[in-house]
Amino acid sequence: MNTQIEFDRSVFYNKNSNIDLLSLEFNLKDIILDKKINFNFEIDDISSLNCQRKFSLIFLENEISLSIDLKKICIITNKKEIFLNDKYHNIIFVKDINLAYKEIINKIYIHDDLKTYDDEFLLKNNSFISKFADIADTALIANNCVIGKGVKIGKNCIIKNNVVIKNSIISNDVIISDNTVIGSSGFGFDLKNMGSKNLLPQIGIVYIDENTYIGSCCTIDRAKIDITYIGKNSMIDNLVHIAHNVVVGNFACIAAQSGISGSVKIGNHLISGGQSGFAGHITIGDNVTVAAKSGVTKNIKSNSIVAGFPAIDIKDWKKLKIKEKKNGYK
Amino acid sequence: MNTQIEFDRSVFYNKNSNIDLLSLEFNLKDIILDKKINFNFEIDDISSLNCQRKFSLIFLENEISLSIDLKKICIITNKKEIFLNDKYHNIIFVKDINLAYKEIINKIYIHDDLKTYDDEFLLKNNSFISKFADIADTALIANNCVIGKGVKIGKNCIIKNNVVIKNSIISNDVIISDNTVIGSSGFGFDLKNMGSKNLLPQIGIVYIDENTYIGSCCTIDRAKIDITYIGKNSMIDNLVHIAHNVVVGNFACIAAQSGISGSVKIGNHLISGGQSGFAGHITIGDNVTVAAKSGVTKNIKSNSIVAGFPAIDIKDWKKLKIKEKKNGYK
Amino acid sequence: MNTQIEFDRSVFYNKNSNIDLLSLEFNLKDIILDKKINFNFEIDDISSLNCQRKFSLIFLENEISLSIDLKKICIITNKKEIFLNDKYHNIIFVKDINLAYKEIINKIYIHDDLKTYDDEFLLKNNSFISKFADIADTALIANNCVIGKGVKIGKNCIIKNNVVIKNSIISNDVIISDNTVIGSSGFGFDLKNMGSKNLLPQIGIVYIDENTYIGSCCTIDRAKIDITYIGKNSMIDNLVHIAHNVVVGNFACIAAQSGISGSVKIGNHLISGGQSGFAGHITIGDNVTVAAKSGVTKNIKSNSIVAGFPAIDIKDWKKLKIKEKKNGYK
Repeated sequence: MNTQIEFDRSVFYNKNSNIDLLSLEFNLKDIILDKKINFNFEIDDISSLNCQRKFSLIFLENEISLSIDLKKICIITNKKEIFLNDKYHNIIFVKDINLAYKEIINKIYIHDDLKTYDDEFLLKNNSFISKFADIADTALIANNCVIGKGVKIGKNCIIKNNVVIKNSIISNDVIISDNTVIGSSGFGFDLKNMGSKNLLPQIGIVYIDENTYIGSCCTIDRAKIDITYIGKNSMIDNLVHIAHNVVVGNFACIAAQSGISGSVKIGNHLISGGQSGFAGHITIGDNVTVAAKSGVTKNIKSNSIVAGFPAIDIKDWKKLKIKEKKNGYK
Repeated sequence: MNTQIEFDRSVFYNKNSNIDLLSLEFNLKDIILDKKINFNFEIDDISSLNCQRKFSLIFLENEISLSIDLKKICIITNKKEIFLNDKYHNIIFVKDINLAYKEIINKIYIHDDLKTYDDEFLLKNNSFISKFADIADTALIANNCVIGKGVKIGKNCIIKNNVVIKNSIISNDVIISDNTVIGSSGFGFDLKNMGSKNLLPQIGIVYIDENTYIGSCCTIDRAKIDITYIGKNSMIDNLVHIAHNVVVGNFACIAAQSGISGSVKIGNHLISGGQSGFAGHITIGDNVTVAAKSGVTKNIKSNSIVAGFPAIDIKDWKKLKIKEKKNGYK
Repeated sequence: MNTQIEFDRSVFYNKNSNIDLLSLEFNLKDIILDKKINFNFEIDDISSLNCQRKFSLIFLENEISLSIDLKKICIITNKKEIFLNDKYHNIIFVKDINLAYKEIINKIYIHDDLKTYDDEFLLKNNSFISKFADIADTALIANNCVIGKGVKIGKNCIIKNNVVIKNSIISNDVIISDNTVIGSSGFGFDLKNMGSKNLLPQIGIVYIDENTYIGSCCTIDRAKIDITYIGKNSMIDNLVHIAHNVVVGNFACIAAQSGISGSVKIGNHLISGGQSGFAGHITIGDNVTVAAKSGVTKNIKSNSIVAGFPAIDIKDWKKLKIKEKKNGYK
């Protein structure tokens, strides 16, 4: 659903123009092992497994079926068998896919983990608002906020004090409470190549849908390539962390100090108790309730109630706690 | 004790004047089913189960014995049997008590989850301080703070950088460390009616008593109607969340990343280890120690030491852990 | 290693000059029981168990072997047997060691938990930067930051928005993300003497080594006397708390909402899952992996993988979880 939301990446991340597939090679000699370019184009965007875009690059470690005209995409891969597949018109074979991602993206896009990043701010009503942000007239922004370039804030939003919003689209009627950070970099890196100079560039955005409330001191990280999405009519308490690429459906209720790891997909009507956590890359159905302090480590079917760590059906968890009491300490 | 602290709500929340009981009906036709008004008065305040105030409204789902002259209070209830009770002189029968609370309070008071909220700030020593705040001459306020209307800050307080304080009374000799938020909205809403436009108005305050220390990046939410209270001589570490209506006694020591859910009442001399959590609406006695990472789900008697989730007597918890080792994995 | 990093304390904490050992007594009559001063000197620094410095005071509750010329140090102790040991040339016998630490340090140093603390800021590119900070020309500082006196920020650092940095040395190529607080006071106090007026002065610093990344809304507290250290090439996610005196080695990877309690020492190549916690004063070897939501309560040997609370070998933890399923609820 929401991963289909279109956005213009270049509004958030200035693009170095005139980079086409044939020119990608410069400075990348150690990284690029081989390439086949049959239909050259100027690189206009980046694709992901979830969303393929025209005139873009896609980084592939495994073969997938692409939803796009193969002339309009260029694959970067570290897998020889993918490179050798004749059906790909434009493909680059690299030694290290993460290093290639880092070097190539940093050549094309400027983002706030690079020193070349730049923005221009106007001080409006005690907050710094980018000249290149698009704020509805009816949105209220309190003091000491920073609203970065490309950010869109919809009608009737209330942005409280000391809030940082970057690389994000905020729909109508959203409230964001004090000292919250929306759209900062996801925690994306290669364990084999750590540190600030080696971050995997995070060039996606955050999208907060209509009528949603975000508490104080929360962090909602932008996606690596696509969208970190929070659905409509959702309620997020204080000190909640939502990592990059997460999708939370409509009518979510997430209590304080919960954390949702990268790339988790959650359906509608989640209820999550305080201090609960979700392991990365899992899928949670609709109408799921997660008890406080749970650690959800696996996919959860719709209409479930889970508790504990690892989180199990709450009826099983209660049985376990009764057994613990009977056999363990009484 | 502390719930008896008096405060003037209108200092924090501008009141739309001239709303009396008889005039409540306008625009509320769908909400108000019936009413009996025998002693009309201009609405001057809001009462709660804990604290009844003169010339106020009180929202009741269950019958309670009110401590106030019944002529000086008007009950709003969704229970027919309460409405029909002859002893109440002023009573309004509504379909949906939460909706009535939201609509009526938003008609009477202005707060920072409404777009009509307004304040006027002066830039003093690099912080934005409301013209309507009352800051002791001997209080220090560092940079980039926001101190909202009605806020009182006592003698010799130190407010560090990027702190937001709204709707709060800070006693003497309190230190509040960097990037902490005091007095933002509690997480109050109706699960059947979610989202920013449907918040249950939070029109209470936070009261931090003397000689208390609050760490960095904490969130202490204001009460819904009364006071979120932190007692004297308390020590609160970083990234701690204290929800609306919580009462913490004197000499509390709360380690980092702990969370206390809404309406919890805690006695004096609490010691809480890091990352512990307290479920909502429970009561904790005096001299209670909660081990790190505990999840306290039930009332705890004075002079207890508890651990685990759900938290149990620490001796039982240790037995359990020995049994786990013996039977579970050794 | 890192505890050997030298720093000039007086750059961060203005020192009241001309206090020598003989003059220590004023106003401390109730605290000082007896003293022997054979080689008087002006007090130039404070020592700790880990690091002894010339012309300093050291507060000792237990006898240790000091690595420094005994003429150049003055011991403050509450232990009669230490006081009576003839080998110490300069020694002061006190009733209450914590009270003595508080009173003496507050007499010598000014820090930001005292009302006498002062700094002078310039507004540069929308941030408040102390006149007495040392920022590399190539470092970027975004909006609404506060950089305090003595702070050093190395080459090519990126400090994002609303960041507070005090009492810290930031090496080259460090990125610190939005709304994070570095170098605020450690949670140091005496449970017998609580509250803001009785804090044990925190006069150490934070040292963030090269090429390290710190996420948003984190708190890294300065040491009590020495250095809270984060090693090179480390990656720290959002909402992480690192307490005073902690040492984290190089190549650490710490996921969101983790907390490391005071004085924990961690080797290189830590991987810590989200929401995990470390009890105070423990030692963790190299190449240790801590599963998400773990609570590490004891020293951990190098090359271990642990999980659970209290954290045990992950193989044992998995056995336990299988047993729980078999016997507990299936």
